[in-house]
Amino acid sequence: MLFSHGDRIVFAGDSVTDMGSEHPVGEGLFNNLGHGYVRMVENLLIAAYPDMTVRVTNSGIGGNTSRDLLQRFERDVISLKPDWISICIGINDVWRQFDLPVSKDTHVYPDEYEANMEKMITASKAAAKGVFILTPYYMEPLKADPMRARMDEYVEICRRLAEKYDCIFVDFQAMFDRVFAHRHSCSIAWDRVHPNEMGATIMAREFLSHCGFEFHREA
Amino acid sequence: MLFSHGDRIVFAGDSVTDMGSEHPVGEGLFNNLGHGYVRMVENLLIAAYPDMTVRVTNSGIGGNTSRDLLQRFERDVISLKPDWISICIGINDVWRQFDLPVSKDTHVYPDEYEANMEKMITASKAAAKGVFILTPYYMEPLKADPMRARMDEYVEICRRLAEKYDCIFVDFQAMFDRVFAHRHSCSIAWDRVHPNEMGATIMAREFLSHCGFEFHREA
Amino acid sequence: MLFSHGDRIVFAGDSVTDMGSEHPVGEGLFNNLGHGYVRMVENLLIAAYPDMTVRVTNSGIGGNTSRDLLQRFERDVISLKPDWISICIGINDVWRQFDLPVSKDTHVYPDEYEANMEKMITASKAAAKGVFILTPYYMEPLKADPMRARMDEYVEICRRLAEKYDCIFVDFQAMFDRVFAHRHSCSIAWDRVHPNEMGATIMAREFLSHCGFEFHREA
Amino acid sequence: MLFSHGDRIVFAGDSVTDMGSEHPVGEGLFNNLGHGYVRMVENLLIAAYPDMTVRVTNSGIGGNTSRDLLQRFERDVISLKPDWISICIGINDVWRQFDLPVSKDTHVYPDEYEANMEKMITASKAAAKGVFILTPYYMEPLKADPMRARMDEYVEICRRLAEKYDCIFVDFQAMFDRVFAHRHSCSIAWDRVHPNEMGATIMAREFLSHCGFEFHREA
Amino acid sequence: MLFSHGDRIVFAGDSVTDMGSEHPVGEGLFNNLGHGYVRMVENLLIAAYPDMTVRVTNSGIGGNTSRDLLQRFERDVISLKPDWISICIGINDVWRQFDLPVSKDTHVYPDEYEANMEKMITASKAAAKGVFILTPYYMEPLKADPMRARMDEYVEICRRLAEKYDCIFVDFQAMFDRVFAHRHSCSIAWDRVHPNEMGATIMAREFLSHCGFEFHREA
Amino acid sequence: MLFSHGDRIVFAGDSVTDMGSEHPVGEGLFNNLGHGYVRMVENLLIAAYPDMTVRVTNSGIGGNTSRDLLQRFERDVISLKPDWISICIGINDVWRQFDLPVSKDTHVYPDEYEANMEKMITASKAAAKGVFILTPYYMEPLKADPMRARMDEYVEICRRLAEKYDCIFVDFQAMFDRVFAHRHSCSIAWDRVHPNEMGATIMAREFLSHCGFEFHREA
Amino acid sequence: MLFSHGDRIVFAGDSVTDMGSEHPVGEGLFNNLGHGYVRMVENLLIAAYPDMTVRVTNSGIGGNTSRDLLQRFERDVISLKPDWISICIGINDVWRQFDLPVSKDTHVYPDEYEANMEKMITASKAAAKGVFILTPYYMEPLKADPMRARMDEYVEICRRLAEKYDCIFVDFQAMFDRVFAHRHSCSIAWDRVHPNEMGATIMAREFLSHCGFEFHREA
Amino acid sequence: MLFSHGDRIVFAGDSVTDMGSEHPVGEGLFNNLGHGYVRMVENLLIAAYPDMTVRVTNSGIGGNTSRDLLQRFERDVISLKPDWISICIGINDVWRQFDLPVSKDTHVYPDEYEANMEKMITASKAAAKGVFILTPYYMEPLKADPMRARMDEYVEICRRLAEKYDCIFVDFQAMFDRVFAHRHSCSIAWDRVHPNEMGATIMAREFLSHCGFEFHREA
Repeated sequence: MLFSHGDRIVFAGDSVTDMGSEHPVGEGLFNNLGHGYVRMVENLLIAAYPDMTVRVTNSGIGGNTSRDLLQRFERDVISLKPDWISICIGINDVWRQFDLPVSKDTHVYPDEYEANMEKMITASKAAAKGVFILTPYYMEPLKADPMRARMDEYVEICRRLAEKYDCIFVDFQAMFDRVFAHRHSCSIAWDRVHPNEMGATIMAREFLSHCGFEFHREA
Repeated sequence: MLFSHGDRIVFAGDSVTDMGSEHPVGEGLFNNLGHGYVRMVENLLIAAYPDMTVRVTNSGIGGNTSRDLLQRFERDVISLKPDWISICIGINDVWRQFDLPVSKDTHVYPDEYEANMEKMITASKAAAKGVFILTPYYMEPLKADPMRARMDEYVEICRRLAEKYDCIFVDFQAMFDRVFAHRHSCSIAWDRVHPNEMGATIMAREFLSHCGFEFHREA
Repeated sequence: MLFSHGDRIVFAGDSVTDMGSEHPVGEGLFNNLGHGYVRMVENLLIAAYPDMTVRVTNSGIGGNTSRDLLQRFERDVISLKPDWISICIGINDVWRQFDLPVSKDTHVYPDEYEANMEKMITASKAAAKGVFILTPYYMEPLKADPMRARMDEYVEICRRLAEKYDCIFVDFQAMFDRVFAHRHSCSIAWDRVHPNEMGATIMAREFLSHCGFEFHREA
Repeated sequence: MLFSHGDRIVFAGDSVTDMGSEHPVGEGLFNNLGHGYVRMVENLLIAAYPDMTVRVTNSGIGGNTSRDLLQRFERDVISLKPDWISICIGINDVWRQFDLPVSKDTHVYPDEYEANMEKMITASKAAAKGVFILTPYYMEPLKADPMRARMDEYVEICRRLAEKYDCIFVDFQAMFDRVFAHRHSCSIAWDRVHPNEMGATIMAREFLSHCGFEFHREA
Repeated sequence: MLFSHGDRIVFAGDSVTDMGSEHPVGEGLFNNLGHGYVRMVENLLIAAYPDMTVRVTNSGIGGNTSRDLLQRFERDVISLKPDWISICIGINDVWRQFDLPVSKDTHVYPDEYEANMEKMITASKAAAKGVFILTPYYMEPLKADPMRARMDEYVEICRRLAEKYDCIFVDFQAMFDRVFAHRHSCSIAWDRVHPNEMGATIMAREFLSHCGFEFHREA
Repeated sequence: MLFSHGDRIVFAGDSVTDMGSEHPVGEGLFNNLGHGYVRMVENLLIAAYPDMTVRVTNSGIGGNTSRDLLQRFERDVISLKPDWISICIGINDVWRQFDLPVSKDTHVYPDEYEANMEKMITASKAAAKGVFILTPYYMEPLKADPMRARMDEYVEICRRLAEKYDCIFVDFQAMFDRVFAHRHSCSIAWDRVHPNEMGATIMAREFLSHCGFEFHREA
Repeated sequence: MLFSHGDRIVFAGDSVTDMGSEHPVGEGLFNNLGHGYVRMVENLLIAAYPDMTVRVTNSGIGGNTSRDLLQRFERDVISLKPDWISICIGINDVWRQFDLPVSKDTHVYPDEYEANMEKMITASKAAAKGVFILTPYYMEPLKADPMRARMDEYVEICRRLAEKYDCIFVDFQAMFDRVFAHRHSCSIAWDRVHPNEMGATIMAREFLSHCGFEFHREA
Repeated sequence: MLFSHGDRIVFAGDSVTDMGSEHPVGEGLFNNLGHGYVRMVENLLIAAYPDMTVRVTNSGIGGNTSRDLLQRFERDVISLKPDWISICIGINDVWRQFDLPVSKDTHVYPDEYEANMEKMITASKAAAKGVFILTPYYMEPLKADPMRARMDEYVEICRRLAEKYDCIFVDFQAMFDRVFAHRHSCSIAWDRVHPNEMGATIMAREFLSHCGFEFHREA
């Protein structure tokens, strides 16, 4: 597997990463890790690799855009000296353009998003063994939806930067498209953004599929 | 205007009609009418027609399908001796097919829906001066979405029955399509079903546009 | 209509404006705008003009007299760079004279009220395209009531200043008199000051009748 | 004083009598007597007559009209075998005509009110040493107010019946008129019906002034 | 009566004065005056003298000893420029000696009590038209009880200082002794210190009996 | 020790026995036994006799008089087939005579008390190996207090019946007199009835001193 | 995989199965399935098999022993017509023997346990395609612990019956032993019985390893 | 007995000492002492020695390791000028090594523990008449358990230091071993650390057995 005994991985992000975790960063038992995909990743790591300790830290804060995350990136991610860094940001950059169209100061447009991401990625590459880029997403499979169309631009930025800086690229948007070929998005999230426990498990599975994770291995 | 001084109108429906109203039926000050489109209809009637009293009764109950509403229709609608009856049902008939696909006993398919509607409409026509059919809807403007496509079948049933029985037809689905040409649905409802206060006002305005309502009239 | 696409309007006032809005100023979805006439104004704007965005900001704080509002007027109104400013203040200036007659330091008498208003109006005229003066009111139609009689002096000051400075004058007191020719005030407010949702709709309708608002227009 | 050691007095009425008392009837320490005029009457009796025990029972229930009180009069008043009975009812008979004009089934008009009162008074006269009629009231001193004008009809019925059946007549409406010559009603009640502690004391004082009560007597 | 129209009276004390009032000082409607004897004094003043305004201020804070009150006396009493000052302190000075015998730093012994009182009385005499000394008390009529015996020493200090400085002396301890000749203390207070509403009325009546108060006067 | 391995003891009583235990009867871990002397008895039994199991059942219900306890004695005590029965009742029989003097139907006078006790004792003697009579008490050491004087009559009845029927007699009243020679009752109970944890421990110690209990024994 | 599209599986058990699920049985979104291993099983099924629907029903109720489950087995399991039945019961049968040793009527000893299990298994075999026996467990790896030793007897009964009736045998006790070779039980459960989310995932993984489940399969 | 009239004893520790006490230190009635062994010690002292006052202070704070306690030892223990000091610390030093193995910065290993303890003991010896060392413990009687084995190292350090500095040594670990020969630990604590009231009594009894405490003495 990708992670070694004793490695530390920090998950940076917004409410989808946060999901009720401790602020500014949380780890350990109970809700300190929240109840989203980060919690599920640790659950599955411990279930299949009880003989290995990987320190999982949740550095997600609800409502964050890439602008907010950049501002606290040194304090809440880099200074923790992680071996691995995961970044999943951008949903709010797009969402505010659609649910609060009049409040333009809360919007983060593609150019700024790309610049914010690039700064965080270069800082991460310098600090850690490996960097994961988890794409933002909108749980809407129809690409004609204007918010989905907008989100695709941000996903594309992620793909480009991941390639440029040799990051591990986890495409949550594409993954949800595959799921929604079979199930309607309303069975995974009320608002097409915040996954329920099933959605969190789908995301954790996708993440772990990039880590050489073996579900049925013997400890 | 359509309504006369002293008329009573009963709004039957599901959670979209209910929106926190008193059970089984509510009327009067405060939350007894809930805080959805029914509350807004009464607000606007009183604002523009303070010299006229129209008794507005909320007979919506959250989670109801047409099957549930039919079962309580005599008790909660007909027996109140309304002058006007409004029926807005069907969202849950469709929704359960998508958010709880495994629980088939909670689904109401088109044939049963049509039969349920027809029974309520004929009972209403015999009891009241006029009957409104308010369509169910899904706040998804893309008709390729499977739940929207399914909903369109139910809307079509409403249209056909309204015509057959000479009811006043209020097409919420078409109305939302017009709105979403300009704004994204996420600014009106988190889950594409339950409108916030803005959405409730949009719905009340649509309803009143079929009633000869004059917003700026002098009392 | 008076407002153009992209305009911002700030509503300054006391608890009648506030009605549970975010402090010091609120805007956006949900309760950030409170549930009074400001919320209703935005609801109706969006219902009839979904193709136009007007940024509505609630700058009301419960319990404020004109003395309190003046003190925070630069921070909570002018500095927001609004295109339109609405001022609705004075109810508490009068009320404290009647419900707390012994606590004279909480009273604001007509001379001070006029001076406070004049300062806020001149600041507003210099900053915005247009200024609305919404009169304070007491939901008591009998002019012999001493608090109503007192309130009429403040309404008169508003009328005089609105004329002097060419503001849009919205006479809530006169409007309520027209309503109470048909309905008793106790059906609109328990305490003759804080309107329920019906009263808030009556106020929003009055406000919008000064804005060239068309309820039934096609978007 | 009117009451003898060991006498029991039952106060029947609506929310003004109830004020949070135990249901259906309450007595004893704490809130069992509510915190309205009944509580104040007992407080003052004990303060001035600590050497005498008078059993005070609160039989008020919020929202009651004379129709409701009549229905429970045998159970909640007569069957308690009181020495003295006090009846204070009618506010809701009138109020519903003004705050819920559309819900006519909740209104109790003068003829029915008089019939209800007469039944309760004759039952009381047969059962107790003495009967108090406490008038309903509206804390509005201006007689031109339509609800006040309506209330005066009910007060007049009380006066007539009290005389006919030789009851002790306590005219709360006239008493409040005297108070509001000096203070505004908003300092006594938010809604012109439910008194605060000051109003409750004013009412208790009026009641006791018909009982030969001596405030400064030595026990 | 002792008080003139427009006079202000400040009641300083501990939890018996406080009884839930606003901190550091409270006045006006509702619970700002607490629900103890201060609330009752204002209630009775308004009931009998609606034509006169006396500003009543509650400056009691629960748990205060004379040491604590002295420390805040300038801020919470003198600086309010009262016409009349009432001081009721000392219960906690004594109580802590009995319920927390091991925590000697919380005890205030007679010598310190007398010094504290003398400082507050001389400051009050210099600032106000008149000063009331309300004795501390223990609702235990048997003088052999050690806490009652101790309290009698503090009452005696009050009596001596009231005479020396020509204050109005209100002997709550003697008053309760008279009441307990007829009723057991457990019907007035659970803990022999904090009166219920009946006890608060007994105390207010005693206070007002030193003020030329006429309960039945015509306004 | 008196109790054998496997014995069951049921404690019947009022709020002093109950102290928050499960109703109608409670046992086991946590609050099922309440937090009064019954809890303390079990705590001490387990601390000193971990090698022995004694089943302790709390059958106390707050507010009970001997009349109430008699009514449920078969169901809540006898039918549990206890080896030992403890009865501690009578405080409310007396208390109501002093805190609710007007409500005579709540009082239980000595003759009825004695009759009630005798019925419960004879039923207990027939059913169990041994019966404890725990006296009611009032935490007032001065016998001149009228409620204490009254309580002494009930204590005397307990003593007489315990002797007549050869019960184990636990005199809580005498025990508290010994304690209050050294400490004031206000450090043990706010209301002279309900002990805090210290008081509960004093009572448990007294109970166990009649059982051959050895605190320091080796298990 | 073992399950086919459209299959229904009912999980019967105690609090470990229940974990906050709806009563008597729960299914669907949110907490209706609780948040224990049943929730995790559904999460993982949907994550890896989004193209297949398996109806998962939680029929666990906290505190149940095998005696309690047997009593409701027809109503809560068999009558649901499941294709698959899972039984996980026995922890409370053992636990009560150790945490409530005095309350013997709450204990279920091995003979009764075996009889209860056998009845449920035969009923299940007659009704479903397949039956899972999930062993009770105590998260104590040291077999010398008396409660663990006792639990091993019950696990052994499960093994024997699973073999006799050809059920799928899931040995949670053995699985936890393997985990605790690497991690201390206190990181999985506070009380050695109720797993946190990590423990629930370990259990779900074990369950699924008997079902031909493929974690990384493509839908 | 060891303690003299007027002595003060301060109990320093973690959550086992704290158990809900006031922070940073608590004493007096009610929950200020928490509800653990400290509360029980005071209860028993007062029950058996009502004629003697010993000031008991709870200086426990939940979650503290020896590192945390050392940091606040001067402020929360020494500066209170106690006659006796009790130290019970170390459980969290060990526990974090097992329930949060990945978070190594929260672990306190034996060398640091010994150093921390030695500093606190020497400071205590210099300040007080006598010092108690209460061992940390894990309520697991099987010494093969890795956390128990680890705890034994810390207990051994306590024993060595107690001997070296002539402290009174209270071996809670050995005491629990004796108890668990008869009862399972799950009847005393859910998590093998925090005792219920029975466990707190067992601990208080053990503590007092080192103080010459006589349970049945006459005051």
